[in-house]
Amino acid sequence: MDYRATEWPVSGTPARINGIELNQICDIADLAREDPDVIKLWIGEGDLPTPQFIREAAVSALSAGQTRYTYALGVPALREALERYHKRHFNVDIGADRFSITAGGVQAIMQAVQAVLNPGDEVIVPVPAWPNLIEIIGILGGKVVPVPYRTLAAGGFALDLDDLFGAVTSKTRVIAINSPSNPTGWVMPREHMLAVRDFARSKGIWIISDEVYSHFTYNGALAPSFLEITEPTDRLIVTNTFSKNWCMTGWRIGWVIYPKGMSKIFDNLSQYNTTSVATFVQHAAVAALDQGDEFIKSLVARSTRGREIICSTLDKLPNVRVFWPDGTFYFFFSVHGMNSGYDMARRILKEAGVGVAPGSAFGPGGEEFLRVCFAVDPALIEEGARRLEAFLCKQQ
Amino acid sequence: MDYRATEWPVSGTPARINGIELNQICDIADLAREDPDVIKLWIGEGDLPTPQFIREAAVSALSAGQTRYTYALGVPALREALERYHKRHFNVDIGADRFSITAGGVQAIMQAVQAVLNPGDEVIVPVPAWPNLIEIIGILGGKVVPVPYRTLAAGGFALDLDDLFGAVTSKTRVIAINSPSNPTGWVMPREHMLAVRDFARSKGIWIISDEVYSHFTYNGALAPSFLEITEPTDRLIVTNTFSKNWCMTGWRIGWVIYPKGMSKIFDNLSQYNTTSVATFVQHAAVAALDQGDEFIKSLVARSTRGREIICSTLDKLPNVRVFWPDGTFYFFFSVHGMNSGYDMARRILKEAGVGVAPGSAFGPGGEEFLRVCFAVDPALIEEGARRLEAFLCKQQ
Repeated sequence: MDYRATEWPVSGTPARINGIELNQICDIADLAREDPDVIKLWIGEGDLPTPQFIREAAVSALSAGQTRYTYALGVPALREALERYHKRHFNVDIGADRFSITAGGVQAIMQAVQAVLNPGDEVIVPVPAWPNLIEIIGILGGKVVPVPYRTLAAGGFALDLDDLFGAVTSKTRVIAINSPSNPTGWVMPREHMLAVRDFARSKGIWIISDEVYSHFTYNGALAPSFLEITEPTDRLIVTNTFSKNWCMTGWRIGWVIYPKGMSKIFDNLSQYNTTSVATFVQHAAVAALDQGDEFIKSLVARSTRGREIICSTLDKLPNVRVFWPDGTFYFFFSVHGMNSGYDMARRILKEAGVGVAPGSAFGPGGEEFLRVCFAVDPALIEEGARRLEAFLCKQQ
Repeated sequence: MDYRATEWPVSGTPARINGIELNQICDIADLAREDPDVIKLWIGEGDLPTPQFIREAAVSALSAGQTRYTYALGVPALREALERYHKRHFNVDIGADRFSITAGGVQAIMQAVQAVLNPGDEVIVPVPAWPNLIEIIGILGGKVVPVPYRTLAAGGFALDLDDLFGAVTSKTRVIAINSPSNPTGWVMPREHMLAVRDFARSKGIWIISDEVYSHFTYNGALAPSFLEITEPTDRLIVTNTFSKNWCMTGWRIGWVIYPKGMSKIFDNLSQYNTTSVATFVQHAAVAALDQGDEFIKSLVARSTRGREIICSTLDKLPNVRVFWPDGTFYFFFSVHGMNSGYDMARRILKEAGVGVAPGSAFGPGGEEFLRVCFAVDPALIEEGARRLEAFLCKQQ
């Protein structure tokens, strides 16, 4: 089933579509997804199955015959549970009439961009960035305007607001922010959020804020959210997912929060993209929200340990440039003398038995980096760190 | 949670998006989705829960921890089961490398249109048609060129090929065929398929063929498929779903069949639309394909009975124009003197306690029709037919 050997050039498809490179994370992961000897730190997911209480809620809903079409915006019980979740964690009042349930965080972004973009419009994206955001904009005929993060001498990444605002043109429709940021681990400070909000208001620009990793921070506080500093009528769309907080990557369920009054648009976009999300999966998601706070805490504690292990191990190596992440569960690092993260990732898979994601998967500025996901069993990340250390030592 | 009362005009969104009217089927269904006294024949789904053996396969996969990300094109076992299914039912050889699993039939169409359309391109669509097809084209910046079916004096609908080919311009990118057709029940004859194939080949035009209702025919044979008369390199994309054959509407899983060599494009489009379909749901779909042939037969037998009941009951009324459908499980009819199916559908819901879909939901040419889904318990359709008969008698 390796189709890559049998490709022929497909004429009659738009260059915008057939020119998309295969996702480099999947490209490498597909080489050894089923190999038990590989320590898999490439994909953005933990190594735990979904908690039992969430799976049980799905089974109960299946038994109860929750197998037919439902509301495109999502079942009311789920949108109400989301209202409670946001009040409890962020102390914000988001009415149930501002949520729509989507097939994962990626579909939340797909609908957000569909909702506001015309072909030819520009979207400003700090890079490196999650490849899905970049490709979605291209699929819909928009233009990505990349704004590189800066790396700080002290370690870490920063987004210079002058860089960001300087990229705006008359065609700018959206500023896309992902904080905490995949893959860099950067977290946008609250005062920068205020500045972006005010700038966007003054220009009539939309903010699409991907806040998937809010819980995964390492200073004891949740990452700031645009929801905390905006009004229900601001041009803000927040995208999120059940994947990371509750280990539900394979369930494909997320949500979008839109300004008050945009229900009809998101009702339609849900209808015409996926009709809805599986009915019994939505009932499982209610359980995740209402009974999952302790689980999130345990997951963040596990990530905290994983971060410490991988970062401190590689920090000792003279040829590795380590940026301790402020948020997410990713460690984004570069190796002295490495020109292509893609080639290096393939070598690390083959020679060290560790699956890492090449930074080139994350667009411009990522080529010389590698990404590791540390939201896994500390014993596993320890073994992965040991293998990486041994391999990287030999590269000096 | 009735947001319709609180809408305000949303500025800053494209007219193409905010101008989409709310799906009129859902619009009416949302009025009484939970009302047990209404006989619900509006939505395109049967009244049965998903068969137990399919639900059990999902539960087994959940227990086995199939809850994490998987292949964007779909798990290999499912693509292989689809290969067997197509060989068994249609006697066609479609390699596993030509399938991609999608979040329902609607997402299959969304990806098919994304794969081939540039903004501004034209898509020829026989109408009335499934609204989702029409709106997807609009969302992606394409232009729908409607070609009305003709109604025959003898009853039934027909698609005139001169009408179809005459609608082609230099901007035509796709001819979209849905046979058996929702909502009209029309089935494209095999010789017309051959003519469309040859025409499309000569012009380099794509065919997107929605073949969701192939099993639901009433002459003892499956509806002809474009797969039977094309080569793996033809510009043909076939979309399908698990929803109808196996009562899995609420599961959101379907598939797309693409020309050999387009795997990379559909791998990417799956990745950037939904990443994949829920892993345990895919395992349930394998069970549906491999163990569900008898269930499909029983469902078609049930629909055959439902068709007979509703069509023959209304056929007796002098003010109802009945078109016995050759395929699908829909009955599309008009009432003498009825100008707006939408108003009539609301009245029928209120006064007769029957949920029917307004024909206006299906685009131009549908305004004076109503659609009933008869894939339900014969006792239910009998009661629905009785109520409709009593109501329509009074309209003369």
